Amino acid sequence: MSSQQTSEHLVHVPLGERAYDILIGDGLIGRAGGEISTRIKGRKAAIITDENVGALYHGPLMDSLEADGFDTVSLTLPAGEKTKSFDHLTKVCDVLLEARIERNDVVIALGGGVIGDLTGFAAGIVRRGVRFVQIPTSLLSQVDSSVGGKTGINARQGKNLVGVFNQPDLVLADTAVLNTLSEREFRAGYAEVAKYGLIDKPEFFDWLERNWREVFSGGPARTEAIALSCQAKADVVVADERENGRRALLNLGHTFGHALEAATHYDSSRLVHGEGVSIGMVLAHEFSARLNLASPDDAKRVERHLKEVGLPTRISDIKGDMPPAEELMKAIAQDKKVKGGQLTFILTHGVGQSFVADDVPSSEVLSFLSEKLER
Amino acid sequence: MSSQQTSEHLVHVPLGERAYDILIGDGLIGRAGGEISTRIKGRKAAIITDENVGALYHGPLMDSLEADGFDTVSLTLPAGEKTKSFDHLTKVCDVLLEARIERNDVVIALGGGVIGDLTGFAAGIVRRGVRFVQIPTSLLSQVDSSVGGKTGINARQGKNLVGVFNQPDLVLADTAVLNTLSEREFRAGYAEVAKYGLIDKPEFFDWLERNWREVFSGGPARTEAIALSCQAKADVVVADERENGRRALLNLGHTFGHALEAATHYDSSRLVHGEGVSIGMVLAHEFSARLNLASPDDAKRVERHLKEVGLPTRISDIKGDMPPAEELMKAIAQDKKVKGGQLTFILTHGVGQSFVADDVPSSEVLSFLSEKLER
Repeated sequence: MSSQQTSEHLVHVPLGERAYDILIGDGLIGRAGGEISTRIKGRKAAIITDENVGALYHGPLMDSLEADGFDTVSLTLPAGEKTKSFDHLTKVCDVLLEARIERNDVVIALGGGVIGDLTGFAAGIVRRGVRFVQIPTSLLSQVDSSVGGKTGINARQGKNLVGVFNQPDLVLADTAVLNTLSEREFRAGYAEVAKYGLIDKPEFFDWLERNWREVFSGGPARTEAIALSCQAKADVVVADERENGRRALLNLGHTFGHALEAATHYDSSRLVHGEGVSIGMVLAHEFSARLNLASPDDAKRVERHLKEVGLPTRISDIKGDMPPAEELMKAIAQDKKVKGGQLTFILTHGVGQSFVADDVPSSEVLSFLSEKLER
Repeated sequence: MSSQQTSEHLVHVPLGERAYDILIGDGLIGRAGGEISTRIKGRKAAIITDENVGALYHGPLMDSLEADGFDTVSLTLPAGEKTKSFDHLTKVCDVLLEARIERNDVVIALGGGVIGDLTGFAAGIVRRGVRFVQIPTSLLSQVDSSVGGKTGINARQGKNLVGVFNQPDLVLADTAVLNTLSEREFRAGYAEVAKYGLIDKPEFFDWLERNWREVFSGGPARTEAIALSCQAKADVVVADERENGRRALLNLGHTFGHALEAATHYDSSRLVHGEGVSIGMVLAHEFSARLNLASPDDAKRVERHLKEVGLPTRISDIKGDMPPAEELMKAIAQDKKVKGGQLTFILTHGVGQSFVADDVPSSEVLSFLSEKLER
């Protein structure tokens, strides 16, 4: 296993005065204190986590921080998407202020995307910004939500509709924690890994088709896939930090995916985010083929691979009843990727050839969805 | 009155891609639609105001916006500091999302500092940022809170402890609205005008000592004093947008002032912000003299002028009982101008010669306050 332990990667995100490092490797939680203390001036650290992750990793993280001289305070929240709420945001801010976390002190998100998004938002608004470290503990958050600085909470009108751009000061992606993920959760994160190939890295998608079993079983291939995903996302973010153009490509599969999540009321027993993205990416390729922008063979190839790894690829793969197409359209219209009433979609000319289309007629989307729901 | 109407000022705040204009003049609300539509792409406008201001100016503003083709939605909140809360922030976000305000649409703060701070915060976090215009309707907000991009709400631990930096896209300071302010409210705003002289513009303080009556009675001297104040603040903000150094000078009088506000539980019948700043500025000059940094004559000169215009200048000017010095110190320690446990204060070498001191012993502050409270 020594090759696994030594295959540590560093991805630097060069965002000027907001530049930061992403470390990817085995056992980073156990030496978090050292990595953080070399980068942060303050000596207070607040750990925000959830019940599931906290039970496994809060102790080791706190020990490491205290060994390096940090005073720690901790808050453990319920696990699950419902935690990304105004109520919990208020609670996190209150805990940080009560602990007198100051601008040079650090707030640490120990958990998946929910904890990262909520904590990053709180760290961005308490005292108008304190230091912030992400320790993502799911594959999804390691390759996606912990990179790029988008933070936020959900509103009753939709997901992630309230938040700030807040780049972390450091990301520690400890690959050892992935060994305790359920197969389903790992697969859901894999959908985002595959997404980077589909956006603009066809050779990465080829590689995943050949090596996905090694990625799932752990070891150097997994670490490499995570590092390559972080690098791919970092490249896009550096080119367009505030999502005025190119960054929208990261939403490949997400407009459909978010609508499906909304339609299933964010019930994780029916659909988790990565699963929605998986179905959404297949739909985006099929919709592109329907508009004669791409070959139907590409859509079939994408579906074949995602199905092979065990991900859902069709709306009918979702358990339970789905609402009519009109309801899905409502969720799409409320999605924040809408400008001046026109629909913006990420479409594709084929595997690794996606692009931003900002003039997609909603009537086309509606009839496409209606067909898909009939099957 | 024609000279009054033509004395319009424009202060440009050159913050790169966050650059914006401040227009200062008579009757700007009546032509807000035109000024906004030339600068904003979207065609939806949300007006956030309070009961008092809304009763006078909401109609004219809405008419102007609709005449220029905006669809408007409005929210009227209770007047007063208590509105700067998480609950009202949630409410504003909900209204903006329900109205489907998108990134290029505009949110307009029509009111004083409370409405401006709350609305600017909401506009900065809904969809991670939509367009934002300030129409400040108090002297205080025209010369201070609407310039510089600090937004936020209060927490139970203190004022303005949660928020974001969010520069507006435009500020319209309509001087006509100042005619409806109470004398007390105008005076409170005047404390911040005088502050700019005390920070680093001794010649402006001289000018105010000679011309304050004209500033109070309206006309060109008033518009000029407002424009000069906006320019003074803009200069400091441009030099240090995120308050890492020089910007802290704007807190002259504010550390003591905030503590007094906290001690009177933000009860505006006892003390409003500008009054706290007035007393705080005198205290800052007296404290500087006590530390042998400035002449006691400067403190006397500052007190004489502020007293002449009718502002409170001593803790004993505040009606009702004050807590002991230890309680005031607690509020000071929770103030966000604290780094690594040491007290940061704005001290002075004399009128117009203030500076940031980041090593003020809290024991000195405590004994100074104890003396002041005994009188």
